[in-house]
Amino acid sequence: MNLNELKERLYVAVVSDVLDQMGYTHQATRIPFNAYTGIPKLMGRCKTTLWADMYDVDPNPYDLELKAVDSCQPGDVLIAAAGGSDRSGIWGELLSTAAQNSGCVGVIIHGGVRDIDKMRAMQFPVFATSRNPYDSQNRQRVIDMDVTVEIDGVRFSPGDMVMADEDGIVVIPKAIEQEVIQAALNKVSAENVTRDAIKNGMKATEAYLKFGIL
Amino acid sequence: MNLNELKERLYVAVVSDVLDQMGYTHQATRIPFNAYTGIPKLMGRCKTTLWADMYDVDPNPYDLELKAVDSCQPGDVLIAAAGGSDRSGIWGELLSTAAQNSGCVGVIIHGGVRDIDKMRAMQFPVFATSRNPYDSQNRQRVIDMDVTVEIDGVRFSPGDMVMADEDGIVVIPKAIEQEVIQAALNKVSAENVTRDAIKNGMKATEAYLKFGIL
Amino acid sequence: MNLNELKERLYVAVVSDVLDQMGYTHQATRIPFNAYTGIPKLMGRCKTTLWADMYDVDPNPYDLELKAVDSCQPGDVLIAAAGGSDRSGIWGELLSTAAQNSGCVGVIIHGGVRDIDKMRAMQFPVFATSRNPYDSQNRQRVIDMDVTVEIDGVRFSPGDMVMADEDGIVVIPKAIEQEVIQAALNKVSAENVTRDAIKNGMKATEAYLKFGIL
Repeated sequence: MNLNELKERLYVAVVSDVLDQMGYTHQATRIPFNAYTGIPKLMGRCKTTLWADMYDVDPNPYDLELKAVDSCQPGDVLIAAAGGSDRSGIWGELLSTAAQNSGCVGVIIHGGVRDIDKMRAMQFPVFATSRNPYDSQNRQRVIDMDVTVEIDGVRFSPGDMVMADEDGIVVIPKAIEQEVIQAALNKVSAENVTRDAIKNGMKATEAYLKFGIL
Repeated sequence: MNLNELKERLYVAVVSDVLDQMGYTHQATRIPFNAYTGIPKLMGRCKTTLWADMYDVDPNPYDLELKAVDSCQPGDVLIAAAGGSDRSGIWGELLSTAAQNSGCVGVIIHGGVRDIDKMRAMQFPVFATSRNPYDSQNRQRVIDMDVTVEIDGVRFSPGDMVMADEDGIVVIPKAIEQEVIQAALNKVSAENVTRDAIKNGMKATEAYLKFGIL
Repeated sequence: MNLNELKERLYVAVVSDVLDQMGYTHQATRIPFNAYTGIPKLMGRCKTTLWADMYDVDPNPYDLELKAVDSCQPGDVLIAAAGGSDRSGIWGELLSTAAQNSGCVGVIIHGGVRDIDKMRAMQFPVFATSRNPYDSQNRQRVIDMDVTVEIDGVRFSPGDMVMADEDGIVVIPKAIEQEVIQAALNKVSAENVTRDAIKNGMKATEAYLKFGIL
């Protein structure tokens, strides 16, 4: 099953439930991310960047962020770990255009974005925690890329599968990827059976006793 | 006038104004609730649940929440007082399906919800303060139901009339329900007169002097 | 070029960038404003009001807010500097109706608004930081008008040009207005050239080297 079919069949909550049952109980973010460009679902592999605030003139403006977008591979999701900083809008139209050209399928920004209406017109998937009109130059910059980063206590490693939807964001560690995906597909089927039974009039208490799912 | 007609004619701000004038000045919430499933108005009678965070294995998972949804009566609005906890998504698709089957007309959740796209597809009214992909099992549970609860300092008692719209949420204490509804219907008419006068060119200062309404 | 054409051609981020380059680095708000009535862009001249919380009976309810809306001039944007207070909904349908009659083209409220569905039906542009069902009477009032006010550390002076869009809000000081507008129009053209080059396959690193814009 390819990435697009998986994106259609699965959703963040069911992947999180499966990870829970396997003992991986810190794989999803709880803080609110907004799908600012109106595309409510995203799936791909983590291409990570680590950002820091700065307060002086940048000797090499945009240096590593340009390298990061230019080195995206098809299916990558660019992750910007900026600690939720509200110092500037670190992601906008030009970086989106460049990332999309490199095959990037969307971005997850723990911080501010700008040019929202232009990125919506591009139909580029953007999940972020805030909006901010300020340019990042001399305010924030990428200090490392292709390293493990953390957002809201969740670790994103290069190449990990990541999924975002309206409920939140979940990361699947690479080592257990196949097992998680198979179990999640199975749980989707079981949830459908439970929901249909309730829809047809079975009480929730009885349905949970019978199917063990909620 | 039945519940649906009242829901069409009244709105939260006008009910809050009438309660204000009767000396009930703490009947509305100020914290932001989102109508996550896109249905911007809700009216019914409070069916209350009280939630607590937990950090160990639950011996009876989902016990009281299943009882609560299975015992809803037609016209009930399920209230989840969870203190705004961000520990999990305590409300989702299966509970919505069960509650709807019992006649519940919508929910107000002071905490996290999940399965948002599925609940939107069901057209089930959901007002909540946050989104969260984590299952509630072993994280949060209902510790009491059909008791008076508080959300943002406002008391919700079983059977009280509750209304939610884009401006917020207001509760009408049962003892003064008829009086409040009649006064609110009267104020809606008076506001229409004032607005039409201003629309036709009367200055706001003059309109307030003449009609005493803003 | 008139106000409406400028509003179409410019946007908050590009105006902020130009101000940045001229050394005006605190002209935009970072806190989230919502376009509650669904109109995502606003441009005009600041008509300022300063609000304070109150806790007793107001001897002259609505006094200065009525004067403010009645004295708006065509093209004015009413600014309500209320410190982000969540005490009440200080702006609603009747004030919107009166302001619109005076030529006001929209409002920016650092605080709560109510009657959101009615203001949306009016198609009146409302940017605000929160929603609140409570009447402002005996809770908040205007204590001064037509004075310089601050929102999120940004100064709004009477007659200053102000622009709001999905990215945020920016104020152009009157003394440098013509210079800023001309430079912003130039930067929009330069951004279009850069974006088209990237769209046509130029790497972002190369495009930044060549055009000096991001």
